[in-house]
Amino acid sequence: KHISLLPGDGVGKEVMESAEAVLQAVGTEFGHTFTTEERAIGGEAVDHYDTPLPEATIQASEQADALLLGAVGGPKWDGVSAAKRPEKGLLGIRKAMGLFANLRPVKWFPALQSASPLKESVIAGSDVLIIRELTGGLYFGEPRGRNGQGDAVVDTLSYQRAEMERIVDKAFQSAHMRRGHVTSVDKANVLESSRMWREVVEAKSKDYPDVEVEHMLVDAAAMALITQPNQFDVLVTENMFGDILSDEASVLTGSLGMLPSASIRSDGFGLYEPVHGSAPDIAGQGSVNPLGMILSVALMLRHSFQMTEEASAVEQAVQETLNHGYHTADLPQENGQLMDTEHMTAAVIDYLT
Amino acid sequence: KHISLLPGDGVGKEVMESAEAVLQAVGTEFGHTFTTEERAIGGEAVDHYDTPLPEATIQASEQADALLLGAVGGPKWDGVSAAKRPEKGLLGIRKAMGLFANLRPVKWFPALQSASPLKESVIAGSDVLIIRELTGGLYFGEPRGRNGQGDAVVDTLSYQRAEMERIVDKAFQSAHMRRGHVTSVDKANVLESSRMWREVVEAKSKDYPDVEVEHMLVDAAAMALITQPNQFDVLVTENMFGDILSDEASVLTGSLGMLPSASIRSDGFGLYEPVHGSAPDIAGQGSVNPLGMILSVALMLRHSFQMTEEASAVEQAVQETLNHGYHTADLPQENGQLMDTEHMTAAVIDYLT
Ligand SMILES: CC(C)[C@H](C(=O)O)[C@@H](O)C(=O)O
Ligand SMILES: CC(C)[C@H](C(=O)O)[C@@H](O)C(=O)O
Repeated sequence: KHISLLPGDGVGKEVMESAEAVLQAVGTEFGHTFTTEERAIGGEAVDHYDTPLPEATIQASEQADALLLGAVGGPKWDGVSAAKRPEKGLLGIRKAMGLFANLRPVKWFPALQSASPLKESVIAGSDVLIIRELTGGLYFGEPRGRNGQGDAVVDTLSYQRAEMERIVDKAFQSAHMRRGHVTSVDKANVLESSRMWREVVEAKSKDYPDVEVEHMLVDAAAMALITQPNQFDVLVTENMFGDILSDEASVLTGSLGMLPSASIRSDGFGLYEPVHGSAPDIAGQGSVNPLGMILSVALMLRHSFQMTEEASAVEQAVQETLNHGYHTADLPQENGQLMDTEHMTAAVIDYLT
Repeated sequence: KHISLLPGDGVGKEVMESAEAVLQAVGTEFGHTFTTEERAIGGEAVDHYDTPLPEATIQASEQADALLLGAVGGPKWDGVSAAKRPEKGLLGIRKAMGLFANLRPVKWFPALQSASPLKESVIAGSDVLIIRELTGGLYFGEPRGRNGQGDAVVDTLSYQRAEMERIVDKAFQSAHMRRGHVTSVDKANVLESSRMWREVVEAKSKDYPDVEVEHMLVDAAAMALITQPNQFDVLVTENMFGDILSDEASVLTGSLGMLPSASIRSDGFGLYEPVHGSAPDIAGQGSVNPLGMILSVALMLRHSFQMTEEASAVEQAVQETLNHGYHTADLPQENGQLMDTEHMTAAVIDYLT
């Protein structure tokens, strides 16, 4: 398998080294050959190639079997023009590769409860998969921009019915393999697009009689994620709502630094990245938590390569590492042992092999 | 002063009775005459007048000095056409009266910490005022709707620069009278409208040198409200982001049933309503918490009538009621005394007079 590595900015480079080390360990352990090649994206690409998404990066991605991404962005590029923002690299690669489904699992770990902002009675046992539409809606709709006088501005939230169908289908499939419950989030009391969304969900639910569907307004969902995180199995929603709700959900368990994400399309090709972002405040210190990236490798093994056993082995190794009290600075553990990025990665590899 | 009462649906009617009782008590106590008149809105108006916002309600509102609203909506009207949804009544009155600024204060009460989903170490001391733009953006932008074939749909997020200026100004004014900090929330790394929003905030901040400004992306704000609610003083944002973030914030302290809101325009005219909504599950039982409505009356006294002393007296009475352990079913208090709506209201009036 051939993988394009897109380390990007900030702590992205550091966690990508962890990803490579874990990948090679999986290869040795299970007899696979993983070849990798590094490409530029984000601010780093702006610095070297004057664009956040060089043509060479797209071409390499098209040749690869999967993509691993570190993070993009940082204050260094605050002043650049809209077209050269580091984030454009990420938005561009999602769109160019057709990665329409963003999967964000959030799971409560008993060992990390002290890091959660929520009371244990509220968050204990939570295990939600947020599925966000990633290539439509307000992020890409036209027209967008100012009028001639510059005193008015529009963005456009636009969707094709087919774009809704494929992401909703993904949600039902996922729920079918999990606990059989889909919460579809929209703003159907205000938005026309949400009313079409609801129709699509209703129609699709006929194909999955074993999956229970619930509709929830986005404002109500923003509340319920905090007051009853336990009630969710799969939560599916459009791009902008998904951006907000998935980040909201990511801090509930206190394990932001451990969260992986997958951005995939129907044929199994995908881009995998940790949720934490470029974290410029701690970049270059070798202290970032590598578990979000390592668990993203596990997601890649499972979703893009059907290597179920290998994926589980990585997840198991992460679990063991935590159970033994090893942790990074973002995850305080009483009586635990504080590790830097390199040693945390080494510990995971130890438990893996 | 003449006030239009719009009880609306569900528990709206019950809390409106509390509002009237408190208002008359304030009148007697402070020597004011408040006249009131009830008008239909929401589902109730659909049932009786076949429209969620009868012309008579708009006319009465135009004659009034302020509006009190209970709540609109409920499953009973799930099947009605888009134009007759109860929510259209609320959206319509906001737009018709030009109520562009929605003010939602959220404050931590030590006595209610047991009802908060957050750890005390995280939420203690929080006191944030969310200011949401209320008459622009995705809620009203054109075009909206489906294409001819029905296989695509758009909504439009549109703003005039002047609409941004007046709400941003309101935020700076408010911060100036509070702790001098504004967090402006947008999605400037993706949306054109957010980039204009940021410009407006930067320009306006020059007029308020004593107020500190911070820009935050909406996804980051959704996280920070949970992990560091303490860091916020005034949070200002556009309509849809404000809908989501203000509801998210409303559950942090555990006091949703107590939260008031004000929807105002520059001349001081405003509509005041509790945040909790129509709560169809408990409607008609006489058990709903009236404090959100009663504190909305206090907001009205202060903002629309400049009756500062009277407003403080109402807030003080609510505080005393809680301090004495009286509470409604939504707010568990250890060793407290459970009250129904009527007796809770009577207790507040007792402490007021
Ligand atoms: C960087 C930004 C454009 C991006 C998004 O909003 O999609 C990020 O917040 C994410 O969620 O992956
Ligand atoms: C009822 C609905 C249209 C309304 C809104 O989204 O504005 C409500 O959620 C609110 O926040 O007042």
